[in-house]
Amino acid sequence: MAEYVKVLPEDLRKFTATCFMRYGVPPDDAELIADHLVLANLRGVDSHGVIRIPYYTEGVRKGLVKGKAEVRVINETETTALIDGGNYLGIPVATKATEIAISKAKSAGLAAVGARNLGHVGMLAYYTLRIAKNGLIGLVTVNAPARVAPWGGAQAMFGTNPISFAFPTSKKPVVVDMATSAIAAFKIRLAALKGEKIPEGIALTKDGRPTTDPKEAYDGILLPFGTYKGYAISLVVEILSAVLTGGILSKYVFNHPSTQGGFFVLTINPSRFREYDEYLRDIDALVNLIKACPPAQGFNEVLVPGEPEDRNYEERIRNGVPIDTSTWKLLVDVSKELGVELPKTI
Amino acid sequence: MAEYVKVLPEDLRKFTATCFMRYGVPPDDAELIADHLVLANLRGVDSHGVIRIPYYTEGVRKGLVKGKAEVRVINETETTALIDGGNYLGIPVATKATEIAISKAKSAGLAAVGARNLGHVGMLAYYTLRIAKNGLIGLVTVNAPARVAPWGGAQAMFGTNPISFAFPTSKKPVVVDMATSAIAAFKIRLAALKGEKIPEGIALTKDGRPTTDPKEAYDGILLPFGTYKGYAISLVVEILSAVLTGGILSKYVFNHPSTQGGFFVLTINPSRFREYDEYLRDIDALVNLIKACPPAQGFNEVLVPGEPEDRNYEERIRNGVPIDTSTWKLLVDVSKELGVELPKTI
Repeated sequence: MAEYVKVLPEDLRKFTATCFMRYGVPPDDAELIADHLVLANLRGVDSHGVIRIPYYTEGVRKGLVKGKAEVRVINETETTALIDGGNYLGIPVATKATEIAISKAKSAGLAAVGARNLGHVGMLAYYTLRIAKNGLIGLVTVNAPARVAPWGGAQAMFGTNPISFAFPTSKKPVVVDMATSAIAAFKIRLAALKGEKIPEGIALTKDGRPTTDPKEAYDGILLPFGTYKGYAISLVVEILSAVLTGGILSKYVFNHPSTQGGFFVLTINPSRFREYDEYLRDIDALVNLIKACPPAQGFNEVLVPGEPEDRNYEERIRNGVPIDTSTWKLLVDVSKELGVELPKTI
Repeated sequence: MAEYVKVLPEDLRKFTATCFMRYGVPPDDAELIADHLVLANLRGVDSHGVIRIPYYTEGVRKGLVKGKAEVRVINETETTALIDGGNYLGIPVATKATEIAISKAKSAGLAAVGARNLGHVGMLAYYTLRIAKNGLIGLVTVNAPARVAPWGGAQAMFGTNPISFAFPTSKKPVVVDMATSAIAAFKIRLAALKGEKIPEGIALTKDGRPTTDPKEAYDGILLPFGTYKGYAISLVVEILSAVLTGGILSKYVFNHPSTQGGFFVLTINPSRFREYDEYLRDIDALVNLIKACPPAQGFNEVLVPGEPEDRNYEERIRNGVPIDTSTWKLLVDVSKELGVELPKTI
């Protein structure tokens, strides 16, 4: 038995959009969510791909997030905006915040937009890539249900609190997108589904004992990446995402894969500092320097952040999206529940 | 023999300012540099304190940086500015950039200022603290002579590329200030001066062999903190500091403790998002949550970034600044060279 099935991205997108429309999500937003989740799968970020369909729809069913809501801009200046998402699914809310930040940075040079009261926003690179495609530098952060202890602490206080940056180049953007925990919580769930162990030194049981069992870790406490320095970055993410926006602190976010704290997006227009061509010339030179760096023992090459995901994308857009069998079973259930035809396997 | 001498901060400031004036630095800027370096010592960041006097003055003597120069704003909008430092000592240039960013964020809500062609800027917390004291959120980055390999690489490509954030609270600001290398290069030099070893796993010799010898590490290659995630942050710092500003890439910055690549400062006015009182209430609540976190095994308490430095400050402002004997010897030499009276030891 194959450990995965493969589907065409277009079929997967159609399936995903239809599922969300059945839940009352307006068609444009359902398409947006589908585009987002399938892009995550195409980039190999399967923890943030279509596996989220059953969780997001469960969130709607349980009343944790809404499948339809009014998204309001409650405070706005030339450079800033604050959005109340009305507890709508996070992807359309965060996309709106990002679009506002892009538009404002084009006119004002810089912009920062916060959003609160919204569901899970998915893969942060979705937003920063959109920013970079507009010739802007993007920073995006979000806080999430508490799973990570501060350095030296024995209680979960922060979400996995990811942070993403993207910088345009004349080829693919440089894209950083990483949890500030030593591992993403959903990757632990995925490891549990696949029956795999997690590395040492990244999680504690709920009693504070080190563990490599993904189930114990999922019920327990994660550690920040890079000890006290990762803790500091996690705290920065918490403040920008929740305190600046008036979003919910991670400790008080209801723990479900459909929920989120607050969302923060910052955009910088590099052409306000230098001629855009000069910026491109210099970032290209930096990327080339890094690619020319001789690899250390045990490595074949030096990668630029975003490069592994770009390679996954190239491969999967050509050959189809692999979906592991445990995720596929979840999609089969969703398909039955909603009467939506499954994407064809290839 | 004591391993350190102690001096009063005011005496140390006077000595420092006089040394720089002897090198032709205008009095106001000499006072500023003195204030900066002594604050670093007061905060316990001795690697960025008065030990820099002989190195900065050596830089001026060797023509690596200038003791007097015209600092020009070469590009300016309501939210952005780009500064050419004329290769002046970095602290006055970076302070000017920070002041512009503070002023613009007060009027425009957000600001970003870059500076290129400047000397070593010292301790980044100096700038972010200044921003936080104005009720603003600050982000500061700087790149530096190449010492750190990208993750998977065997050649130094980045400086220790520190990053600092500060957030105002109703008490002391939350202040992150950290190298994105696993250790600050100057702390290695300090370890060498003191004859101490450095921890494992943070540096390679120039031939790529792991080492705990600070001299080998100082001549060799440092590793980023937190493996590939710290590498990503180091790269972000490189792009913001050098590419966005047109500063020198770390690989091409002349390797001396008086030199620097480019400087980047971003300011955010939280009152453009919410009532400032609400912001303060929520960040205070977050800090209180963290302080109430039960400590993990081996820890006495959970610290908020900036807290150790604040405690050093309280202690040293009361009891004087300890200066280790090897640094003191350097100051004795400077004192003789310039005919400037040493601060009284207490």
